[in-house]
Amino acid sequence: MTVTIAIDCMGGDHGPVVTVPAALAFVRRHADARVILVGLEGEINRFFSKDGLPGSERSRVFIHHAPEVVEMDDSPALALRNKKASSMRVAIDFVRRNEADACLSGGNSGALMAISRFVLKMLPGIDRPAICAVLPTMKGVVYALDLGANVDCTPEHLFQFGIMGSSLVSAIEHKESPTVGILNIGEEEIKGNEVVKCATELLKNSELNFIGNVEGDGLYKGEADVIVCDGFVGNVALKTSEGVAQMMSFFMRREFTRNPLTKLVALAAMPVLRNFRNSIDHRRYNGASLLGLKGIVFKSHGSADAFAFGHALDRVAETVRGNVLSRIERHVALRQQRLQENS
Amino acid sequence: MTVTIAIDCMGGDHGPVVTVPAALAFVRRHADARVILVGLEGEINRFFSKDGLPGSERSRVFIHHAPEVVEMDDSPALALRNKKASSMRVAIDFVRRNEADACLSGGNSGALMAISRFVLKMLPGIDRPAICAVLPTMKGVVYALDLGANVDCTPEHLFQFGIMGSSLVSAIEHKESPTVGILNIGEEEIKGNEVVKCATELLKNSELNFIGNVEGDGLYKGEADVIVCDGFVGNVALKTSEGVAQMMSFFMRREFTRNPLTKLVALAAMPVLRNFRNSIDHRRYNGASLLGLKGIVFKSHGSADAFAFGHALDRVAETVRGNVLSRIERHVALRQQRLQENS
Repeated sequence: MTVTIAIDCMGGDHGPVVTVPAALAFVRRHADARVILVGLEGEINRFFSKDGLPGSERSRVFIHHAPEVVEMDDSPALALRNKKASSMRVAIDFVRRNEADACLSGGNSGALMAISRFVLKMLPGIDRPAICAVLPTMKGVVYALDLGANVDCTPEHLFQFGIMGSSLVSAIEHKESPTVGILNIGEEEIKGNEVVKCATELLKNSELNFIGNVEGDGLYKGEADVIVCDGFVGNVALKTSEGVAQMMSFFMRREFTRNPLTKLVALAAMPVLRNFRNSIDHRRYNGASLLGLKGIVFKSHGSADAFAFGHALDRVAETVRGNVLSRIERHVALRQQRLQENS
Repeated sequence: MTVTIAIDCMGGDHGPVVTVPAALAFVRRHADARVILVGLEGEINRFFSKDGLPGSERSRVFIHHAPEVVEMDDSPALALRNKKASSMRVAIDFVRRNEADACLSGGNSGALMAISRFVLKMLPGIDRPAICAVLPTMKGVVYALDLGANVDCTPEHLFQFGIMGSSLVSAIEHKESPTVGILNIGEEEIKGNEVVKCATELLKNSELNFIGNVEGDGLYKGEADVIVCDGFVGNVALKTSEGVAQMMSFFMRREFTRNPLTKLVALAAMPVLRNFRNSIDHRRYNGASLLGLKGIVFKSHGSADAFAFGHALDRVAETVRGNVLSRIERHVALRQQRLQENS
């Protein structure tokens, strides 16, 4: 199966310097993959002379000129209305016309969400798009959504996040019935707010492999394959996690650089510390999915380097191969059928 | 100034084995402190024969028998109604009768909150009690509330959390005008939900040193002295943080114990690793305040050892010395005055 990905080459903090080499390496890794490099032709072309791709690979790389660029501080409304020839918009248009299977951008998140939603529209039976990212756990990985697209969610929204997250994990991780948990708090008397309680009922009575409440620490213990939560809570959990990781790294660096002796110890411990760093390297987890749209759109972290961008591209390809959209549609159809039977 | 703390000696996973030695060490550290050890007299007494306290210290330790114990799995309602002679209840009663300046318990959180609220009542002008804990940051510490007492909060509640957190930091950390931030998310279009937006307005127009939004990672960067959030979000942030820290420790241990060579490296790195562990040792941050009551009540972590319980006792003493209650009352009075002036 050929996978074609339209890449917004101008997105992210570094633009083509990162996106183009990562795309070429991706094509080299995946013999069945094609990429459409969208952006300022002149800037993209600069990376081809040195790379000297063999013909078989070069034939799977297409360059498509887009004269405009969505800036990081453009408002989503402005980007949507005034930048119809932006690399971001043009890349998404490829998905709408079925000329690409998916699109990846490291650009302005708000604009990417607004344009994707406007251009591609929502899948029937899904009310709101959600941002789903993958995080490391003690046992493997977990997919969490929503991480910031929706601040006020209804139980129905949370339930739909469950459908979408479960479909994504099936597609990428090849698990037919991933476990789904709902992010909740543990205090006896006040287990969860009203929205979480009602969403729990919906999830329980569905065909999803729902395992109930997961607390914040359970997320990283790998208690579930998918965790659903509203975008406010999800975003806070994600950013807080980043904050703790940064703080621990900061303290560790401080101790290992305290004096000549500790620096010597650091030198000796280098290979071990490197392995440790690799196991929590956020670059390996780059690539968040904008789920719920009639098309596959992924967001790369703005600060991603070529290694991180490559990981996002791999994740996009796996999502395409795993037919995530038809998986979501199947869940939605199953649900409609159930609702009709019960009415 | 003499500080008298009533200690629920039966609370926590370990009971008197932890609480009594920690209390005696506390009395030794603080020449102005007295403790009332509440619980099963027989069990508490066992720790005195061996300790052989000198008379000057022994005279500041009081034992008060309480025949009942609130169990970790007792429902708060049951503990409140049926266990009026529990060590927890009796310790709180000492605070109500002004025979103790504060109470510390490592027992059942829900029961501690319910009994404290029933026995002590709320401070005028404060609608809901909140749980406030101290966390490490790259620059020092941060006090965050609410961490789980209230799942659905109004803007007014969040504002009152600001008053209480600010008062607590003034009392413990001796900062006259601590900075107060509100936990929020950064996405452009959707900065915060409605409650957060309205609470921001209230905080802005108050005498608090309000610095605006703080994102999850900003919490650990030490961007503010006090962070307010609703109890659901706060609890998720806290537990998620614990989860990340546990996961990082798990990965680090895994790498350092991988083979004989890495174990040798670990041995060499031991002093450095120990310093690192100390800087994020959660035991140093033990002792969460139940704020908003007409009395000072602290909760120790259930799993606390004597070192952690001692840190909680130190924090309680500092809170008493810093007059946290009159600080809260002063803020509330200032606010009433403002409201009257504006009407």
